[in-house]
Amino acid sequence: MRSKLINEASERTHVLVFETGDDVIPLLLAFAREHHLDASHFSAIGAFQRLTLGYFDWAKKDYERIAIDEQVEVVSLLGDIARKGEEPQVHAHAVVAKRDGTAHGGHLLEATVRPTLEVILVESPAHLARRFDPRSGLALIDPDA
Amino acid sequence: MRSKLINEASERTHVLVFETGDDVIPLLLAFAREHHLDASHFSAIGAFQRLTLGYFDWAKKDYERIAIDEQVEVVSLLGDIARKGEEPQVHAHAVVAKRDGTAHGGHLLEATVRPTLEVILVESPAHLARRFDPRSGLALIDPDA
Amino acid sequence: MRSKLINEASERTHVLVFETGDDVIPLLLAFAREHHLDASHFSAIGAFQRLTLGYFDWAKKDYERIAIDEQVEVVSLLGDIARKGEEPQVHAHAVVAKRDGTAHGGHLLEATVRPTLEVILVESPAHLARRFDPRSGLALIDPDA
Repeated sequence: MRSKLINEASERTHVLVFETGDDVIPLLLAFAREHHLDASHFSAIGAFQRLTLGYFDWAKKDYERIAIDEQVEVVSLLGDIARKGEEPQVHAHAVVAKRDGTAHGGHLLEATVRPTLEVILVESPAHLARRFDPRSGLALIDPDA
Repeated sequence: MRSKLINEASERTHVLVFETGDDVIPLLLAFAREHHLDASHFSAIGAFQRLTLGYFDWAKKDYERIAIDEQVEVVSLLGDIARKGEEPQVHAHAVVAKRDGTAHGGHLLEATVRPTLEVILVESPAHLARRFDPRSGLALIDPDA
Repeated sequence: MRSKLINEASERTHVLVFETGDDVIPLLLAFAREHHLDASHFSAIGAFQRLTLGYFDWAKKDYERIAIDEQVEVVSLLGDIARKGEEPQVHAHAVVAKRDGTAHGGHLLEATVRPTLEVILVESPAHLARRFDPRSGLALIDPDA
């Protein structure tokens, strides 16, 4: 385990409110580019009309896709934004609940909001970068980068 | 998606510790009134002896109720507090785990604590208001209000 | 419900990045000792190669163990660090998602990371202590301690 202190001074907190039809990941990336976000993390609740989750298959080194084509409560959405090269990258994991109350989760690949998603995003005065990890085939946060 | 910067200066963080028999939503509302909370968000873990979750039925524009009458671990409770008119309103989504480890979730309608619920509540120096949304029939956060 | 204000001045935020094979709870405790952490809370996402969850059996006043011996997405890990006597104590609840997208959760007893766990840890300038609660048999946070 490695660590980095990413805030000793004041952080900035944004509330982002998504509306029906909003596509979560591209809008978060656009917000990150517009506000030059780096070393940010967020949590959210709300509801999706559909989404696609990913499960990382360790043998294949790739995500299996799990499509959920129904209205669900977003009971937890946690994520962070770091740099991968010049571009921000969003890493988000979601837990959603179906009509029967069962919870389902995974890496958030795609999601469409209905009617709202309330995101609390904390922007830290530091830099965090991802670097390609050959063992997993993924770009992981490198605290020393 | 719309956004609002809700903190550039220092935020205040409270720990709320609920005890056996405490009814979560009314006590959170009372705390919000007493401390004039506005633009606050929280996360929590602990355990409930019973709870009622809601699933928003998009066709009926109302919540279906899912009663869980057993001791569960509260594995995630995320929420926010904003104003609806003069009154604070709590919006919370919970994920709970049963004895077999399965997770269940939804909009938190009612919950009774046993033995503890540890809430981290962050109070921002800003205002957030909800406004009636005719399309969903819900009061949603309006960053411009 | 009782409460304690744990931050009015600036908090410190750390990012902890765990790697393949890292054992979560002992490393968090070591970090807490090294940095003299007190009144801290954290959230995390990532993946585990195996973990053991606990369900608190109210009648037995002990945790039932739920072993999950497969690669899972960590879709939510929320927790706090407080003092129990002279020693820091980690209290963490996890939600993990299996290959089929189903979510499972509980009190985190043990977990081994693969390939990463990204933890955002907020350190507050206050003290929080746990005290033995005879009714539950657990050490609960006591805001007045």
